[in-house]
Amino acid sequence: MSPLEERRKSAASAWFNALRDRICAAFEAIEDDYAGPDAADAAPGRFSRRAWDHAGGGGGVSAVMRGRVFEKVGVNVSTVSGTFPDDFRGRVPGTDESGAYWASGISLVAHMRSPRVPAVHMNTRHIVTGEAWFGGGADLTPSLPDTDLNAAEVADFHAALKACCDAHAPADYPRFKKWADDYFYLPHRGEARGAGGIFYDNLASGDWEADFAFTRALGETFLELFPRLARRRMNEPFAAEERAAQLVRRGRYVEFNLLYDRGTQFGLQTGGDVEAILMSLPPVVHWP
Amino acid sequence: MSPLEERRKSAASAWFNALRDRICAAFEAIEDDYAGPDAADAAPGRFSRRAWDHAGGGGGVSAVMRGRVFEKVGVNVSTVSGTFPDDFRGRVPGTDESGAYWASGISLVAHMRSPRVPAVHMNTRHIVTGEAWFGGGADLTPSLPDTDLNAAEVADFHAALKACCDAHAPADYPRFKKWADDYFYLPHRGEARGAGGIFYDNLASGDWEADFAFTRALGETFLELFPRLARRRMNEPFAAEERAAQLVRRGRYVEFNLLYDRGTQFGLQTGGDVEAILMSLPPVVHWP
Repeated sequence: MSPLEERRKSAASAWFNALRDRICAAFEAIEDDYAGPDAADAAPGRFSRRAWDHAGGGGGVSAVMRGRVFEKVGVNVSTVSGTFPDDFRGRVPGTDESGAYWASGISLVAHMRSPRVPAVHMNTRHIVTGEAWFGGGADLTPSLPDTDLNAAEVADFHAALKACCDAHAPADYPRFKKWADDYFYLPHRGEARGAGGIFYDNLASGDWEADFAFTRALGETFLELFPRLARRRMNEPFAAEERAAQLVRRGRYVEFNLLYDRGTQFGLQTGGDVEAILMSLPPVVHWP
Repeated sequence: MSPLEERRKSAASAWFNALRDRICAAFEAIEDDYAGPDAADAAPGRFSRRAWDHAGGGGGVSAVMRGRVFEKVGVNVSTVSGTFPDDFRGRVPGTDESGAYWASGISLVAHMRSPRVPAVHMNTRHIVTGEAWFGGGADLTPSLPDTDLNAAEVADFHAALKACCDAHAPADYPRFKKWADDYFYLPHRGEARGAGGIFYDNLASGDWEADFAFTRALGETFLELFPRLARRRMNEPFAAEERAAQLVRRGRYVEFNLLYDRGTQFGLQTGGDVEAILMSLPPVVHWP
């Protein structure tokens, strides 16, 4: 392991941790500023953190908040190492000579109390095997996709991700957007999981600093973007039918995560922390 | 296709349909007889049926009831044919020369309103490729597995399945019980899905009539057994904490069905009816 590689790993890991702290602070500020119809009924939510160890080495910290705007939001950071089982090696770059890996990342899923505020997911990670690359993405899931309610939020979400990608040479927005459309899709339903966003993996442009800069920029973009979108409608009253539709829509989220999501499967199959991995599952779900 | 084989298919398919009618009637009678604390608040549930076509040929009927004892129960019967995709053929007996299959069966999942009445699953099926066999099983899922509340129901459930198996030569109770324990298991949690029961597949003893007789006997056993168990505690008041525990326990059911259940994966991958396949998912679920 070269000193350069070690410095890069430390820098990536430190970034994910620092981003987590800033996101948690921004989300707690949203909890403080909530002024919706039932604001007086509950105190602002606060994150609680739980550390966990990884069998192969390293570990992570799960931060979870159950609040009055964020019905359930989980922000996981982890820095782990280990050896891939043989049946993984053929599918992972850089594992021909050794199954050893190192991985660090941040992963976030927020399920909102109001059906008028979309659910959101964001994840960025750095992985080192015999090769080194970045991956990640962000996607938005309105609760009422058959209406125009969140049309402005969806447009803003895509615009911000496009601007982020366009400012960074390693990022290819049209390709990353299509990748999200292809990835966040439920073939058994013939339905998109939500409104899409961006998705990318195996990002290794040849300029590590540029790839890392894009990774940081995506985090910064998310940190500015989602709080702005959440604040827009969080105080609006909503109808019982909107809430009912949200709970059904969340069932699609569960179906996607358990049937198709590679991160979930990867985590469960490599002995990750179950509660941290499945933190993405919504707090209340209806399959009517 | 020999006339004998055609008669056998017809007989199996007719049995599954007739069993469905009797189960639905028995469950509706339970709805009628409910006398729990809130009995006056809602009318007895009734099944509604929906027919669906299968892309390869044939189709099925989904019967669903949302009642005051059965929060959501689905009883599917289907008789379908088609050709397995190539990647299935290596995994299915009798498909070396042709991927053609015929399959008929009944599948039932009941999620109960009271956390004091266990959820239950029962399925039997007849499959014909180049070979012909039966498969199926039944398992019970108490909502409060960490208590002794349903100890008597669990004991009765196992005893009835044992008696059914012991009376039929093709059935091997110890093996079928262990198969259920191995199958209805969540490796990522290190937890059983419930209290187990029996599970079997590829049952072809060489005596088709005996195999079919066991299949019918399992249906008859279920028809006598589960209504008896459901009636035992359905009118008991229950605590809010018991209901809360039930909704969390249901999350494990979802995790099992979407991550591991072969019938679910088989159905979704072979173009089955999505609503019929996912009817097994509980109506309300919490991941706290």
